Amino acid sequence: MDFPHRHLLGIAGLNHLEITALLDKAEEAVKVSQQTEKKKAVLKGRTQINLFFEASTRTQSSFELAGKRLGADVMNMAVKNSAVSKGETLLDTALTLNAMHPDILVVRHAAAGAPQLLARKVGCAVINAGDGAHEHPTQALLDALTIRRHKGSIQNLVVAICGDILHSRVARSNIILLNAMGAEVRLIAPSTLLPADVEALGVKVFRDMRKGLDGTDVVMMLRLQLERMSGAFVPSVREYFHFYGLDEDKLQNASEDAIVMHPGPMNRGVEIDSSVADSGRSVIREQVEMGVAVRMAVIETLAENACKFNDKGE
Amino acid sequence: MDFPHRHLLGIAGLNHLEITALLDKAEEAVKVSQQTEKKKAVLKGRTQINLFFEASTRTQSSFELAGKRLGADVMNMAVKNSAVSKGETLLDTALTLNAMHPDILVVRHAAAGAPQLLARKVGCAVINAGDGAHEHPTQALLDALTIRRHKGSIQNLVVAICGDILHSRVARSNIILLNAMGAEVRLIAPSTLLPADVEALGVKVFRDMRKGLDGTDVVMMLRLQLERMSGAFVPSVREYFHFYGLDEDKLQNASEDAIVMHPGPMNRGVEIDSSVADSGRSVIREQVEMGVAVRMAVIETLAENACKFNDKGE
Amino acid sequence: MDFPHRHLLGIAGLNHLEITALLDKAEEAVKVSQQTEKKKAVLKGRTQINLFFEASTRTQSSFELAGKRLGADVMNMAVKNSAVSKGETLLDTALTLNAMHPDILVVRHAAAGAPQLLARKVGCAVINAGDGAHEHPTQALLDALTIRRHKGSIQNLVVAICGDILHSRVARSNIILLNAMGAEVRLIAPSTLLPADVEALGVKVFRDMRKGLDGTDVVMMLRLQLERMSGAFVPSVREYFHFYGLDEDKLQNASEDAIVMHPGPMNRGVEIDSSVADSGRSVIREQVEMGVAVRMAVIETLAENACKFNDKGE
Repeated sequence: MDFPHRHLLGIAGLNHLEITALLDKAEEAVKVSQQTEKKKAVLKGRTQINLFFEASTRTQSSFELAGKRLGADVMNMAVKNSAVSKGETLLDTALTLNAMHPDILVVRHAAAGAPQLLARKVGCAVINAGDGAHEHPTQALLDALTIRRHKGSIQNLVVAICGDILHSRVARSNIILLNAMGAEVRLIAPSTLLPADVEALGVKVFRDMRKGLDGTDVVMMLRLQLERMSGAFVPSVREYFHFYGLDEDKLQNASEDAIVMHPGPMNRGVEIDSSVADSGRSVIREQVEMGVAVRMAVIETLAENACKFNDKGE
Repeated sequence: MDFPHRHLLGIAGLNHLEITALLDKAEEAVKVSQQTEKKKAVLKGRTQINLFFEASTRTQSSFELAGKRLGADVMNMAVKNSAVSKGETLLDTALTLNAMHPDILVVRHAAAGAPQLLARKVGCAVINAGDGAHEHPTQALLDALTIRRHKGSIQNLVVAICGDILHSRVARSNIILLNAMGAEVRLIAPSTLLPADVEALGVKVFRDMRKGLDGTDVVMMLRLQLERMSGAFVPSVREYFHFYGLDEDKLQNASEDAIVMHPGPMNRGVEIDSSVADSGRSVIREQVEMGVAVRMAVIETLAENACKFNDKGE
Repeated sequence: MDFPHRHLLGIAGLNHLEITALLDKAEEAVKVSQQTEKKKAVLKGRTQINLFFEASTRTQSSFELAGKRLGADVMNMAVKNSAVSKGETLLDTALTLNAMHPDILVVRHAAAGAPQLLARKVGCAVINAGDGAHEHPTQALLDALTIRRHKGSIQNLVVAICGDILHSRVARSNIILLNAMGAEVRLIAPSTLLPADVEALGVKVFRDMRKGLDGTDVVMMLRLQLERMSGAFVPSVREYFHFYGLDEDKLQNASEDAIVMHPGPMNRGVEIDSSVADSGRSVIREQVEMGVAVRMAVIETLAENACKFNDKGE
């Protein structure tokens, strides 16, 4: 088995062969969505439930289309916060859904670890669609697929991740994946937007964006998540853009053929200038396209694995 | 015809043969959801509309999956209260949907009688998914199926329904069904949570929970619907749990092999203790599983009946 | 090609042959929804996204059922207003969705011209489901289909459009379509509810409803859109009904076999009396039925055209 996991809870725990297997499978899925009849109905009669405790138009849409193009029955569940203690609600909600015999449970939750908790309790495969500031593994996979299509390989590339690292599960999953694939990872951010454990992440840290971008092959911008910030530090948008916003001037420090990425939705004029976002170096729309493909690959792989695991009586 | 009805508006009006026919059909549907390919595409090209005037994550999900596993096109409509007079809105909304040629209209509404009103006006089959404090027939059917699977038969069982009977359409539908099937029904509740017409229901009433549970085969707990209570009486949660919350101590009064049920979502620590809810005697998750099966049986039966009724020019 | 357009952004720009081609195709689709198996699965594997920036239960439902009955995968996206500048959000949202390879994008937006803007940027067919006070082309087409089924032809009919013309995209699209098909169009409204450019519309204007209705074959009532009115003029509902509400008395001025139409949802007692709305002359429910058929015709036509346009490398 080339992907011996029952769930996809994070990039942590995957080796470069397993990541490569998913990317190869996603490459096939790219072709499905480019056909007139965008259908590979291998999951007919399977049930996929998108359980989103945080609203997310684009991630939920991507998972929904991925499931439907595989022929699964897809059900969206937007769960609002209730008065009940959240730990209980989360588990009771998941166990209730589990009793309806889903095959795939896609979970987004504001609390780090929520998908892991559910995975231990339910009988189906769980896909983490973002948990707090912890992980967002399908985002890292779609970023990796996008990079691989442009650069051939991820190994030995220099990748700069810039901006609000502290609040970003996207950054966290990407750092783990890029390290596993042998890239050099640089973080560019002010101290206030870096996590406390940054030394342990196996990365190089830059406060000066121009220096950090020097010679990079890939520039990954992050959304400034003002909605997640509380208390002392909320940066001035104008000042933030001056130091850490990607414009054409700063981008000149990167390699001539560097690509520019952003997980979306973009704050234009805050972390990225429109002239860069809409330029020929931007692969931001392609990231979205790769998102559907990667999710198709993950859903199909886990649905197939579920049968194997269940045959073994696990 | 073993189920000679065009709609399922309540348990009232069904005899034990008709109830048994639905439960037998649901028993087959249980197997569909336990397969890898959870599909019995008998309703391909049929349209099911879930028209929910009250939000309900779990009931709507159960109907949605039931319809999809039967191969129907399912459309969810969450209707918010508008400024317009509600009677008009309800009927105009239903007649508008009816003009789109649905086969099945699943209706939940805060007003008792709303599904009955619609059923007289529309051309399709109407399923009551809960109307005010009146009926919730598919809940009673899924409870009956769960009981039958554990006890073999419902006849002559002693079933205690405990808690907020007054505001509970679940209790009402269950009382009617259990009486029709020949069970002995006991209600356990404080006077303030009993309906005025309790004498006419053909049940035994207990204020003392220990006495009421004595020798019962089935303990059905109800959700304390604080959101439906208004005016004078809102019980203290602590006091309520002391007298009417199901814990291991009180449960010892029931039969040794008594099962514990709850329609969900549970208020843990209010009407039921977690140690009981998660124990081996609890069949609460199985109720959810049976919910999908019962709804598949009802939807398929009514869709088939619709063709017969329409052939007769009714 | 009988409908040489890539998008349906408005009725403006369509000639009577193209309108007739869509109506003829819709006539076939009417039969699909009247069968037990309401399915014409010509769009299997195609993706339809309903992108609604304004909530609309009935229009979205109609598009959703139309797409599903054609066998497409349909995804609903309700987009709330965000703090971001709307022009950017609109375009970034659309480009993100476009990267997921939809075939059909159905767009409703509060700003006139929004679907046109998107159509220039995305690779798929765009259907305008209502943009500000500009156009609502599928509504005009369903109205035309309803009229044609009752009157045989639209040419030379006298059609009165009554009420809040100023805020009505329905009126605007209908005026253009009826003129293109050779009907005589009358507008009946107070001066305050007429657009400034009314002289240029090729219509006759009446302030007196009885005179305006004299000898009309079709009476189209409009919803009084109090929610769109701001500033100086908000009419008194009682006074409005007195002068411009359609009741049986005023309707006697129309032809004996005149039909009464309303795009819904109706304000009963404001712009239309219930006795008229529910009478034998009312074709309001049939309009809803025709809505699904017209949308099936438009979606299928544009999906087929997309293949042709793409073959030409456009």
